[in-house]
Amino acid sequence: MIVEHQSDLTLAVEQAMQATPDPRLREVMSAFVRHAHAFVREVRPTDAEFERGLGFLIALGHATGETTNEVVLAADVLGVSTLVDLLNNPLGDDVTATALLGPFWRLNAPACASGDCIARDNTPGEPLTVSGQVRDRAGRPIAGAKVDVWQASPVGLYENQDEGQPTMNLRGVFTADGDGRFALRTVRPAGYPVPTDGPVGDLLRAQRRHPYRPAHIHFMVTAPGYRTLVTQVFADDGEHLETDVTFSVVRSLVGRLASGPEGFRLAYDFVLEEGESRVPTPPIP
Amino acid sequence: MIVEHQSDLTLAVEQAMQATPDPRLREVMSAFVRHAHAFVREVRPTDAEFERGLGFLIALGHATGETTNEVVLAADVLGVSTLVDLLNNPLGDDVTATALLGPFWRLNAPACASGDCIARDNTPGEPLTVSGQVRDRAGRPIAGAKVDVWQASPVGLYENQDEGQPTMNLRGVFTADGDGRFALRTVRPAGYPVPTDGPVGDLLRAQRRHPYRPAHIHFMVTAPGYRTLVTQVFADDGEHLETDVTFSVVRSLVGRLASGPEGFRLAYDFVLEEGESRVPTPPIP
Repeated sequence: MIVEHQSDLTLAVEQAMQATPDPRLREVMSAFVRHAHAFVREVRPTDAEFERGLGFLIALGHATGETTNEVVLAADVLGVSTLVDLLNNPLGDDVTATALLGPFWRLNAPACASGDCIARDNTPGEPLTVSGQVRDRAGRPIAGAKVDVWQASPVGLYENQDEGQPTMNLRGVFTADGDGRFALRTVRPAGYPVPTDGPVGDLLRAQRRHPYRPAHIHFMVTAPGYRTLVTQVFADDGEHLETDVTFSVVRSLVGRLASGPEGFRLAYDFVLEEGESRVPTPPIP
Repeated sequence: MIVEHQSDLTLAVEQAMQATPDPRLREVMSAFVRHAHAFVREVRPTDAEFERGLGFLIALGHATGETTNEVVLAADVLGVSTLVDLLNNPLGDDVTATALLGPFWRLNAPACASGDCIARDNTPGEPLTVSGQVRDRAGRPIAGAKVDVWQASPVGLYENQDEGQPTMNLRGVFTADGDGRFALRTVRPAGYPVPTDGPVGDLLRAQRRHPYRPAHIHFMVTAPGYRTLVTQVFADDGEHLETDVTFSVVRSLVGRLASGPEGFRLAYDFVLEEGESRVPTPPIP
């Protein structure tokens, strides 16, 4: 199309893409162009601003490598990752809410017996006991469900970020008993900042945002015939609950930490829905 | 904000960014988040599609280096670059339309006398004479205006892409005479494909789009007290005029090529508006 006015451009691009054989690619790119053009028409970037925006995208790619992913991090801190997660896993009353897998899950964490402690080699910290039941939507226990748990240490570091921790520390896979119940011992995790040494850190500083995630424990709950549940449970007395930098704190995922003579206790049940049991690709080899 | 429903997320992100001290950054990022979230809500990407989209952004950054810029190229083939250009330089009847600078402009092309030929060392091709007048909006000639011209060869290559051409071939800076008139001799340029060896090439192939730009001559026209005009003039008898892969063909920039006994002739006048005369940063050192 020969352009007569800027308003012609969106249609011109959509027409150029209309021969795309894959209907889903056609649909996604058409929507992308419409929304991208609407954004440009709203903000009307100057040439210098446009160059700066493109430069930021280049910097995200250049800063992404084997151990860092600034593109994913940018999607996280702009709420896009959580939005995709919530659209694919709508919040409901009957099934446990999901949360992002995050970059720290590892395949093949040690198998544990009920009640085992995942804070190995006397990891210092406040003792915490976690227990709960895995059920289906009808309230029936799911015997033998696997509860894969991983968390940061009391100083906010995962074992593979911290030479002071033994390998696979604060990770374990528990098997629910005949009544769907599981129990484990650990130490309270601390919240921690997302990486701030790349372009996303520059953006957060320019926006006067703190980089912290509130303290949480990751869970992946699987059982044959049930959709894999990937979630995080947050401590109700932690900092940054209202201002999680990745916008992951859903009300129903805030767990109540009760303190007692033997430390803290967290009781949290998981409700799975029927579906495909699928193990994600681990972000860490 | 603790999220109760996916519809809360956009507001949550906007609130997190509201302390941004730079009002323009706040405005741009707020709009970006609203449009990005609207895109996600419209297409509802699966987890796999979301990973593929993020992977495409990473690939654009990784493929961008000193001599290639896939991020800019992606903006070009999705019509975003031309949209920014047209918003900043609205098409009107009285001022010559602008077009993208493109990646091939070089600073310090040779100064030429009126009528000089920029096809050096007998570059083979069909002879073309270009002439015109530089005027202001009131129709007054702008004496001494500089007309910087650059173009691809008859096989579609700029001199710095082609070892067979002498350095600075098909480039020159002409000075308008006392009546604002300029004239130059050259050979007809050919259209050419944008780079297709990176992720943008993959996208174009998946969309069954050709990668060609129609044949054109680049001009940058400058004079003290006038806004620098960066534009491209297209041959009215060339291929791909209706389907320029970068959507740069504006009706008023299509020039009529008349053929005669001594070759082709193109008459094209430039009308500048008052403003700042500013030389862009050259993409090629």
